[in-house]
Amino acid sequence: MASEVAEEWAQGTFKLNSNDEDIHTANERRLKELIGETAGKLHTGRSRNDQVVTDLRLWMRQTCSTLSGLLWELIRTMVDRAEAERDVLFPGYTHLQRAQPIRWSHWILSHAVALTRDSERLLEVRKRINVLPLGSGAIAGNPLGVDRELLRAELNFGAITLNSMDATSERDFVAEFLFWASLCMTHLSRMAEDLILYCSKEFSFVQLSDAYSTGSSLMPQKKNPDSLELIRSKAGRVFGRCAGLLMTLKGLPSTYNKDLQEDKEAVFEVSDTMSAVLQVATGVISTLQIHQENMGQALSPDMLATDLAYYLVRKGMPFRQAHEASGKAVFMAETKGVALNQLSLQELQTISPLFSGDVSCVWDYGHSVEQYGALGGTARSSVDWQIRQVRALLQAQQA
Amino acid sequence: MASEVAEEWAQGTFKLNSNDEDIHTANERRLKELIGETAGKLHTGRSRNDQVVTDLRLWMRQTCSTLSGLLWELIRTMVDRAEAERDVLFPGYTHLQRAQPIRWSHWILSHAVALTRDSERLLEVRKRINVLPLGSGAIAGNPLGVDRELLRAELNFGAITLNSMDATSERDFVAEFLFWASLCMTHLSRMAEDLILYCSKEFSFVQLSDAYSTGSSLMPQKKNPDSLELIRSKAGRVFGRCAGLLMTLKGLPSTYNKDLQEDKEAVFEVSDTMSAVLQVATGVISTLQIHQENMGQALSPDMLATDLAYYLVRKGMPFRQAHEASGKAVFMAETKGVALNQLSLQELQTISPLFSGDVSCVWDYGHSVEQYGALGGTARSSVDWQIRQVRALLQAQQA
Amino acid sequence: MASEVAEEWAQGTFKLNSNDEDIHTANERRLKELIGETAGKLHTGRSRNDQVVTDLRLWMRQTCSTLSGLLWELIRTMVDRAEAERDVLFPGYTHLQRAQPIRWSHWILSHAVALTRDSERLLEVRKRINVLPLGSGAIAGNPLGVDRELLRAELNFGAITLNSMDATSERDFVAEFLFWASLCMTHLSRMAEDLILYCSKEFSFVQLSDAYSTGSSLMPQKKNPDSLELIRSKAGRVFGRCAGLLMTLKGLPSTYNKDLQEDKEAVFEVSDTMSAVLQVATGVISTLQIHQENMGQALSPDMLATDLAYYLVRKGMPFRQAHEASGKAVFMAETKGVALNQLSLQELQTISPLFSGDVSCVWDYGHSVEQYGALGGTARSSVDWQIRQVRALLQAQQA
Amino acid sequence: MASEVAEEWAQGTFKLNSNDEDIHTANERRLKELIGETAGKLHTGRSRNDQVVTDLRLWMRQTCSTLSGLLWELIRTMVDRAEAERDVLFPGYTHLQRAQPIRWSHWILSHAVALTRDSERLLEVRKRINVLPLGSGAIAGNPLGVDRELLRAELNFGAITLNSMDATSERDFVAEFLFWASLCMTHLSRMAEDLILYCSKEFSFVQLSDAYSTGSSLMPQKKNPDSLELIRSKAGRVFGRCAGLLMTLKGLPSTYNKDLQEDKEAVFEVSDTMSAVLQVATGVISTLQIHQENMGQALSPDMLATDLAYYLVRKGMPFRQAHEASGKAVFMAETKGVALNQLSLQELQTISPLFSGDVSCVWDYGHSVEQYGALGGTARSSVDWQIRQVRALLQAQQA
Repeated sequence: MASEVAEEWAQGTFKLNSNDEDIHTANERRLKELIGETAGKLHTGRSRNDQVVTDLRLWMRQTCSTLSGLLWELIRTMVDRAEAERDVLFPGYTHLQRAQPIRWSHWILSHAVALTRDSERLLEVRKRINVLPLGSGAIAGNPLGVDRELLRAELNFGAITLNSMDATSERDFVAEFLFWASLCMTHLSRMAEDLILYCSKEFSFVQLSDAYSTGSSLMPQKKNPDSLELIRSKAGRVFGRCAGLLMTLKGLPSTYNKDLQEDKEAVFEVSDTMSAVLQVATGVISTLQIHQENMGQALSPDMLATDLAYYLVRKGMPFRQAHEASGKAVFMAETKGVALNQLSLQELQTISPLFSGDVSCVWDYGHSVEQYGALGGTARSSVDWQIRQVRALLQAQQA
Repeated sequence: MASEVAEEWAQGTFKLNSNDEDIHTANERRLKELIGETAGKLHTGRSRNDQVVTDLRLWMRQTCSTLSGLLWELIRTMVDRAEAERDVLFPGYTHLQRAQPIRWSHWILSHAVALTRDSERLLEVRKRINVLPLGSGAIAGNPLGVDRELLRAELNFGAITLNSMDATSERDFVAEFLFWASLCMTHLSRMAEDLILYCSKEFSFVQLSDAYSTGSSLMPQKKNPDSLELIRSKAGRVFGRCAGLLMTLKGLPSTYNKDLQEDKEAVFEVSDTMSAVLQVATGVISTLQIHQENMGQALSPDMLATDLAYYLVRKGMPFRQAHEASGKAVFMAETKGVALNQLSLQELQTISPLFSGDVSCVWDYGHSVEQYGALGGTARSSVDWQIRQVRALLQAQQA
Repeated sequence: MASEVAEEWAQGTFKLNSNDEDIHTANERRLKELIGETAGKLHTGRSRNDQVVTDLRLWMRQTCSTLSGLLWELIRTMVDRAEAERDVLFPGYTHLQRAQPIRWSHWILSHAVALTRDSERLLEVRKRINVLPLGSGAIAGNPLGVDRELLRAELNFGAITLNSMDATSERDFVAEFLFWASLCMTHLSRMAEDLILYCSKEFSFVQLSDAYSTGSSLMPQKKNPDSLELIRSKAGRVFGRCAGLLMTLKGLPSTYNKDLQEDKEAVFEVSDTMSAVLQVATGVISTLQIHQENMGQALSPDMLATDLAYYLVRKGMPFRQAHEASGKAVFMAETKGVALNQLSLQELQTISPLFSGDVSCVWDYGHSVEQYGALGGTARSSVDWQIRQVRALLQAQQA
Repeated sequence: MASEVAEEWAQGTFKLNSNDEDIHTANERRLKELIGETAGKLHTGRSRNDQVVTDLRLWMRQTCSTLSGLLWELIRTMVDRAEAERDVLFPGYTHLQRAQPIRWSHWILSHAVALTRDSERLLEVRKRINVLPLGSGAIAGNPLGVDRELLRAELNFGAITLNSMDATSERDFVAEFLFWASLCMTHLSRMAEDLILYCSKEFSFVQLSDAYSTGSSLMPQKKNPDSLELIRSKAGRVFGRCAGLLMTLKGLPSTYNKDLQEDKEAVFEVSDTMSAVLQVATGVISTLQIHQENMGQALSPDMLATDLAYYLVRKGMPFRQAHEASGKAVFMAETKGVALNQLSLQELQTISPLFSGDVSCVWDYGHSVEQYGALGGTARSSVDWQIRQVRALLQAQQA
């Protein structure tokens, strides 16, 4: 008969009564209509306090799985794109100043790698969500010797809670989930910030597809990156929910207090937001166009001064001296009013006799990035290694 | 010679120069004084960007170990106390209203169990701290083919970072640590809140030792629970650091930006706070006195109305009906102006023939708590199980 | 014809089209249906950027007035109650320890006075909301020489914004409003916290009316203070909105960015919450019952040790010495195992010859509170002064 | 003799004892050394609870004055710069996309105007700080009939607190100050964000002076905007303090609780930060160099499409139609592959006969900005009006 009630819910035919206090009493009332007084046994040894938190954990367990899937999809999309555009170069920035030539794929992977940590953390949060509080009663426990391990196995939880007072009133798993979302949104917000810059006329590195931007009939060249701005703005909102819940929890006395009721709206809203944002981010990444030529033109010889120093290091000079020698070359070029790569070999040799004909390689951006072959760097081999690592991580997490 | 420099630091004889930009250049300068130009190689393939974050991770790895130790000490103290005072009963509260008789040890364990989650989380945070960024350079990676796996092994890290841009500019591990501290402080604050109540004249369940309270010569009976109030207040401060850092991180563009410099002060302050608070909490718990008699007197028969219902359930009545029958008994007692346990068997039998002589057991508080024998409940066997579980957890985490 | 459109909105007969982008284009479309192409002039010199912020300011201006009214109603209710129950005494607490006898009305007024500051602040926020941005265009201003002072007068704003870029993208007034709400909720939460304590069995000073608490058929003496817990919990939620918006604003570049769209939901939710919470608080205060006898019984002679010192001060002894003398009396009473007021005059005189027969007045709680006649104290005259002050403030604010 | 103690503090010769509990007891102890037992009267009718909050208010009152001065200095610097560079044009952005030509001075003023609101708010906060709690005792008031109005006049406060319980335990003025700082920092952070963009190679609109940026010998063209990044990062830290304090306050019961002790460190740190940041911002603004030529080159005819529509509006066409006509011109130019201003008059006239020879004015950027003559716009007259308004505001606030 319980399955009949379940069927009614599934069919959407379950009728709520205005007297039903919550879903638990509604089910009991309906069961009573079907089988009579015996339905009164349904609530035996249960309390709203342990039931609502069980419900919430069931719901969040499912949500974590859904969000994990969306996150993996986003990471996969990024890795695929990184692989496909592995040989596109553009400037890497520090302090928003052009610093060194890097691969575009290296940039994509820098954000993908951040998201793998979110993915790892979400699994840890899910592990702590997946603990069964049922059988804790209102506060003191279950008085009828219910077999909680059996309940756990039936409801497919990973473990049971250890203490009934804690079980009914702790919301760590909610706080953790909200913080997980806040940190994940921080990553997405930083990526969005980069892309908003790259979409600007001044950078012109990428262009959002029409589906993810808003144009103007009057200014067709102006494409507002609405999708990215919305991602960025949601980071604040999600964090606000986390901050709000922590403030509510902090200072509550034992055990269940009505204040805890705030947990659900926060979780529902943040879940919806994360689901939407992850999908939008996937859409943005999979459809944006890159302007490879603009990216290339943003590279300039002055970004290679460090490379010049490393050239000398490879010839045997200690780094500190090589750094000084390169500085002299920079100064010489500036004084002569030419680009750094316009200095002749003779001129360079006045600075150090270690300079020889092969110095011309230094001025090749493709050659420059290939230097960074240590694991994690921007050389092609290292980018390939990153791609393999992230793919392996995804596979392991999905297992 | 590097070991000579290390020795100078250890001995406190290392002399800083006003020209030393940071600890890395100071070490190089000193080494140069000792061995000449070759010292210039020290910085080869390194950048301040990957060095400062390596330093921070080294420092935090150590801090996490220290804090783990302090947290285990606190949990152990609580479990020992729970074991020693296993048979003391007092009221459990929901909504700050007396709800059911529980064991005092059950209350202690409710907070200890929350702290075991903090302990588990701290290990996870430490795992993510213990990842080596060295060899990431300023942004593009290391150009001299450094063997990062070798560095990792030498510095005893668990893994290496995957992407050089991410490695130098992500501060997830800092945010995670600050949130870990915020949630842990929330637990300690809730425990402090309970104890502040229990210290009040109105509750009079416990008394802080003099070392952890402030008396007054004029009002010797008034002991201000300063230590507990300070624990409670620190929760806000620690959370503030977490909120501040997240706001700083959110919306930063790639890659290193000076804004990240805010990370260290936050970490140092929060580490100090956590260390102090955990030790104070341990001191409070290990030295507080309980007023067992007051605890017992706070129990009253009206807290046993649910037990009366369960009595009938055990006699075979469906819970919903038993609940109604018990409600009738409560009403009858109220009408007659007597305590619930003053109703005669005859009177009870007018409500249900299932009542018999053994109903007198219901009014025994010791008997009441023993009903909650399901795992996690307040029965003695279940409390013993909790103690074993927490001890096993501690042992596993320390392994 | 514009009035016809307005009428349709008022009547609820306005039909939205799926093509209407927002309310502004909907109005223009409808007007065009009524009067033809001339409707195309409606948007002249306007931009969505200045229109949406004008709309929001109009809405919030109204909301502030509504909330001010509700806040005044609450304060008035509290002041009325303070006046009516002016002569009820009970313990004042510091550190949740009984400290000194005070008037119950003094406690009510302590919270009412805090709320008058919220009321003052709300008027200041409203002043800054009530500034007209219309005529700022998208960013550069209005190109058709619109008379913004005329618009201001027509729309009844207090001033016009000074700079079009700032006008379309600043949301200070939203942040201020959300912070106003956060601080007001902090006050209500602290008051709720006090009342939750006072409702507990241990304090038993007050009892919530049934409308504002939830009983249990099984435990009729247990009344869960749901209304107060909800007030308390909302403080976190409201603050979360404030924190979220600030994080979103922080670091946005000039000028309008889509991120700003987050403002409205925050404002709507917080307005609804404040409106509900203020009304619930008014209901709670106006209907709660006090247990005057319990309040009186919670007073004890040891709370009068400071009064004993002041007795000596009034006889001419420097305070520091009087404090010591009173300490000796406390010690003497403790040693003899009697209450402080059980010491005989002779015994007191062994401590100081300044003690004489009139010392008996010290032990009268009514006499004790009357000492605190300086403005702001708990003497009746001072409480009356407070009541007059708060009433005068309310009157001034409503002017 | 009190003045002798004051003198010792001023001279730095006051010696603290290890027994001195706080500054109040230290002063009393020292006075006793100088004048004997009468010093014991110093504490009469006072309590640490009302003294510490009086001290804090005195300190913050002074701080507010200092910060007001620094803020005014910054605003003045900005207004002076706006006046001096009134005729420099550059792009205004929405969504970080070039939107319309504006005056550089209009941009400066957009941030200056935001800061005038901070200045206004700081005066309001100061007004609420400047209220005297002295005479409130520990909780119940002053028992010796102290004349609080006299104290107020002597200590030069604006008003006295109304209720002794509230006076000793409310920290609204601290929360308000911290929020004031958070919002002010948000403004400075947004300005810093703009300038960091404008400093980038891609924008190249401004250049920080060497004193406010960090160069590199290897990459002399790379100037890291450290000063701006630090401003931006401090916004998070300051907000964190605000969030932390609110969390600590929320849920505290009446009256004084030790938790309140957290107030001082927050205030001190935030005051120091604000003082430093305001001075750095003033330095940055007064020393930065603008690249007027780059600013001009960033303007392009496509930013004038809206102007083209307004041209037609001025000729009598309803805006909606003019918008469409301009859109057709944009489309025509795009189709022909020419810039919008390259369309011939004949071509434009195929779109609308209202186009005539004077359409050429539309393509003049100087002419474009002059359209925005409504108050608050970017026309020269309106910018002059803004400058006058801000100067008048400053003068009024300093009065």
